[in-house]
Amino acid sequence: MTGMKNQSKSGPVWDQNFHDDFARLLQWRRDVRRFDTRPIDEDILIDCLRLAVIGPSVGNAQPWRLVRVRNEARRQKIYDNFKRANADELACYEGEQRMTYGALKLAGLDDAPVQISVFVDNTTTVGHGLGARTMPEALAYSVVGMMNSLWLLLRSHGIGLGWVSILTPDDLGRDLDVPDNWTFVGHLCIGYPMQTSVTPELVACGWQDRLDLEDFLLER
Amino acid sequence: MTGMKNQSKSGPVWDQNFHDDFARLLQWRRDVRRFDTRPIDEDILIDCLRLAVIGPSVGNAQPWRLVRVRNEARRQKIYDNFKRANADELACYEGEQRMTYGALKLAGLDDAPVQISVFVDNTTTVGHGLGARTMPEALAYSVVGMMNSLWLLLRSHGIGLGWVSILTPDDLGRDLDVPDNWTFVGHLCIGYPMQTSVTPELVACGWQDRLDLEDFLLER
Repeated sequence: MTGMKNQSKSGPVWDQNFHDDFARLLQWRRDVRRFDTRPIDEDILIDCLRLAVIGPSVGNAQPWRLVRVRNEARRQKIYDNFKRANADELACYEGEQRMTYGALKLAGLDDAPVQISVFVDNTTTVGHGLGARTMPEALAYSVVGMMNSLWLLLRSHGIGLGWVSILTPDDLGRDLDVPDNWTFVGHLCIGYPMQTSVTPELVACGWQDRLDLEDFLLER
Repeated sequence: MTGMKNQSKSGPVWDQNFHDDFARLLQWRRDVRRFDTRPIDEDILIDCLRLAVIGPSVGNAQPWRLVRVRNEARRQKIYDNFKRANADELACYEGEQRMTYGALKLAGLDDAPVQISVFVDNTTTVGHGLGARTMPEALAYSVVGMMNSLWLLLRSHGIGLGWVSILTPDDLGRDLDVPDNWTFVGHLCIGYPMQTSVTPELVACGWQDRLDLEDFLLER
């Protein structure tokens, strides 16, 4: 417990060393699209998954559904799905932007040793619907919170994650043969990253700069 | 850098002390509905917000829009919005479940010193649409990732966060007078928590137990 101070009635607080290390973790936690193909430690992967799913979810519905994709034929179908969607997306751009887009590597589907497709079960009775009546999308949002924790946990072990959204969800659900009531959220490529910088690739290549907090924050 | 090991071509890794402290942070990061009303440190809040918004977003679109709600009349409108939605939700339950629901405190809108409403701008041109064509919801998911990082950051400073989704989004957007193209994601209550346990309230009160990783994980 080196990184923690004493507990109060509000629970523990973490010390400055932890804050510094956590800040560096957030800086290094980038979307990874280039992976070393060497396998990752299975125990670390499972430990990270177990910790990620203790996170809060609306009504404690725990609506996350994970499909670990090992079968090569299924992996190829997902990669083909991405290539179709990516070609459609490329066709939306023109001129210099099209050249920049064409040069981007936008998924690690060809080299990531672990792939997990994440779905939400919007029909689950776990949690008895609490908190999801006015906002059914809160179920998917709970799943995304879990995915973000997993992303940070893996990164703290030096393992990268890339979230692929350039996919046609219906095709992916069919290719993975998941229950009809599962809705696709994102496909995760996981492995040791080829990454030597904290600068996001889309910043480095000139696609889109970062904005400041003040650009996002209103007062009312 | 006590919690970090040497950097490799994959970037740094964090040491066992950090892993242990981060695991405890994830355990203590619960949805908080009971707050101490004493104010929180403004510098810590802004530092946490600045760090949260460096996280990845689809196309680097940074579609998060934050409204800090200080005005008492607006706060009251949000609280009234919650009370209406909560009464509707209570009416959906019967018998013992209804009694349990009625006894739950599901929002800290009456006591949290800081309140931030979070929206997504699905119409933003930042990021030039990259990655959001097949899945426009990836923009909202990027916002949720940022919110999850903020939740963990605040908690590491001993500050609690409660995510309120029992709200009617259209009414909330109108009451806060936000641009029409912003879509509500969640309302965050922030302050020092009255929290002495890592057990989720919905588990402690018997509403919904936790499930195991194996209940969520398929292989394909």
